[in-house]
Amino acid sequence: MQTKFAKRITTASRSFTRTILDLTAQNEIISFAGGLPDAALFPKEKIEKHAKRLFEDYDNRLFQYSNASGVEALKVEIAKKYATTPSTHIMLTNGSQQGLDLVCKTFLDEGDCIVVEDPSYLAALGLFHMYNATIKAVPLSTKGVDTEVLETLFQEHSPKFFYTIPIFQNPTGYSYTLENRQEVVRLAKKYHVILLEDSPYEALRYDGVQSTAFADLLPELTIALGTFSKTLAPDFRIGWMRAPQEIISALTLSKESTDLQNSKFFQHICASMMQNGELQEHTKTLIQAYRPKRDAMVKALQELFGDSIEFIVPEGGMFIWVNFKKCNDSMKFFDKAIEKGVAFVPGSVFFADKRVSSFGRLNYTNSSLTQIEEGVKKLFEAYQEL
Amino acid sequence: MQTKFAKRITTASRSFTRTILDLTAQNEIISFAGGLPDAALFPKEKIEKHAKRLFEDYDNRLFQYSNASGVEALKVEIAKKYATTPSTHIMLTNGSQQGLDLVCKTFLDEGDCIVVEDPSYLAALGLFHMYNATIKAVPLSTKGVDTEVLETLFQEHSPKFFYTIPIFQNPTGYSYTLENRQEVVRLAKKYHVILLEDSPYEALRYDGVQSTAFADLLPELTIALGTFSKTLAPDFRIGWMRAPQEIISALTLSKESTDLQNSKFFQHICASMMQNGELQEHTKTLIQAYRPKRDAMVKALQELFGDSIEFIVPEGGMFIWVNFKKCNDSMKFFDKAIEKGVAFVPGSVFFADKRVSSFGRLNYTNSSLTQIEEGVKKLFEAYQEL
Repeated sequence: MQTKFAKRITTASRSFTRTILDLTAQNEIISFAGGLPDAALFPKEKIEKHAKRLFEDYDNRLFQYSNASGVEALKVEIAKKYATTPSTHIMLTNGSQQGLDLVCKTFLDEGDCIVVEDPSYLAALGLFHMYNATIKAVPLSTKGVDTEVLETLFQEHSPKFFYTIPIFQNPTGYSYTLENRQEVVRLAKKYHVILLEDSPYEALRYDGVQSTAFADLLPELTIALGTFSKTLAPDFRIGWMRAPQEIISALTLSKESTDLQNSKFFQHICASMMQNGELQEHTKTLIQAYRPKRDAMVKALQELFGDSIEFIVPEGGMFIWVNFKKCNDSMKFFDKAIEKGVAFVPGSVFFADKRVSSFGRLNYTNSSLTQIEEGVKKLFEAYQEL
Repeated sequence: MQTKFAKRITTASRSFTRTILDLTAQNEIISFAGGLPDAALFPKEKIEKHAKRLFEDYDNRLFQYSNASGVEALKVEIAKKYATTPSTHIMLTNGSQQGLDLVCKTFLDEGDCIVVEDPSYLAALGLFHMYNATIKAVPLSTKGVDTEVLETLFQEHSPKFFYTIPIFQNPTGYSYTLENRQEVVRLAKKYHVILLEDSPYEALRYDGVQSTAFADLLPELTIALGTFSKTLAPDFRIGWMRAPQEIISALTLSKESTDLQNSKFFQHICASMMQNGELQEHTKTLIQAYRPKRDAMVKALQELFGDSIEFIVPEGGMFIWVNFKKCNDSMKFFDKAIEKGVAFVPGSVFFADKRVSSFGRLNYTNSSLTQIEEGVKKLFEAYQEL
């Protein structure tokens, strides 16, 4: 007799990125596929120093049960990043992915509509499917979303939220212009739609000036997600949510029944590293390390591929979104690239309808300058053979 | 305009235990309410030693993203506890509460039926409500569940799973007899119902002999949950699930989209403490510390209350389930007890239908011997004034 899983499981497919990660781990492949930060840059010695101090400063109660919303000292530090947000508007999560899960759990009844950017973050799309949501997609271009389509979707489907990554988007690296943002805010207000603003890469800006977040433009209708996975280390598993008090209370209720609470250990370390400015200093180090990587990939792509591809230079983040024009199905290009010893993520998986696409997502943060140069060369060889 | 939460949120109420925890934290109250281990016993120095070694033995990749199912070395150690289980049948979770959440996510469609013991673990009941499950309750007595009622429920409602805490149950401290277990196994097989076996207290046995788990009697239909929260420390946030390969694969899929993965840091520490036998030694220390606490509470209850209450002496775990016969609504007794400066959890909240109850749950692990004596005295004063 067969095991009867929930509908959501039988319709879900294993994350393609995970499959690629497994593939690239087994072979000597240069991988532009994952969304990983460069492990060489993790501030291990600083973390060790703070861990040592934690053991000295705290008694056994450091390891006892505590509350669901997280360590107050860290919530205070995160709140300080925002002009007028009290720490009661912040809660901590097991990475920002859990933030997405808790928002779904707190807001979505079966079949409820949500709007996503097209293309969008793969693991968010997978999660939304798990909640049996009705997913509507709004086209994303280099300047932001198509607000005419967005208005139609808001009007016709009364979505529970619009999931948006307005700064250095995943997979595209695009950022919304201020005009685009303001128009989105106007529509969110008009149709009373929550903006679920995911900003994992915000701090990794190599050019240009800081943008104004939806959470600042429209705090009463925004749930903003942040994370330390890209600025400190993924294994800390610390993300945060910033939202109005009433929403944070409901999210905390969901968190309690989901997994009671997170570990306080790394939350204390994060708090200390923000209090003494180490996190801010470390972010500068990351920017100085990642900017040349982005530049190296941009240069190699331009020099080798010339006009045969199209992309815009992202001002920050971890990805370049390339239109491999010569190949209308980048899934086929992916197979050829793997043969040559280089991996990327074919664009198709990032679209809500998984349509055939000529695009590909290239990560530059987790490869060395040499690997970037060699990898783009292999990519070009594969492209020529198509 | 009001925020439109999901149905599950608007029908959920805040965990009463959390409310009590907040209450007792603010006042000078002796609390028998929480389900907390004694923080004084956490092996902080050993944890610190292993943490130090981790920083020495591992490079930066210790803090990188990894897989969703957890650190292999720890899965191997957990698998060793069970005779024939390979590590592929184990996955790690953010505390065993997350195990419950992932099982619900993986198995429950809206309205699906599940069976719980009556009374049962409060935070599990809360979670099942969040999944809009149809909850049927089977009476629990000192020897196990009523298997006639269980068979009727299995037959009439085809539940997705039966949630059971067969050893030192929460809130009752009761354990199923072997005969009862075998009958439950027969019914699970006959009606093809999954046994969701939660065993957080299993290792804390003060008398009697080790019982055979459902996961050993019926491995092909059991999902067993374990945790290090009671034997090491809650802040480690490490639980595990043991289940057939096909089920572990589906649960891993749910885990990936829920929060990607857990922190590896404390998983490595747990693995080391199991490899060198420290965890096993530490468990003996806990038993030696908790047994006198249980005995002190039993003695105080018997001496003061005499025949005016009823309870059985639990062979292990953290709780005594007392029938305060004189007071048919222990919620009223709770108010009186708080006035006197002592807290416990009124029985009503543990029943699926929240019915009025004369029972109360008393925790003895998180109070000193003196507090236990004084607390029971205050409890008796309150009882006399009823």
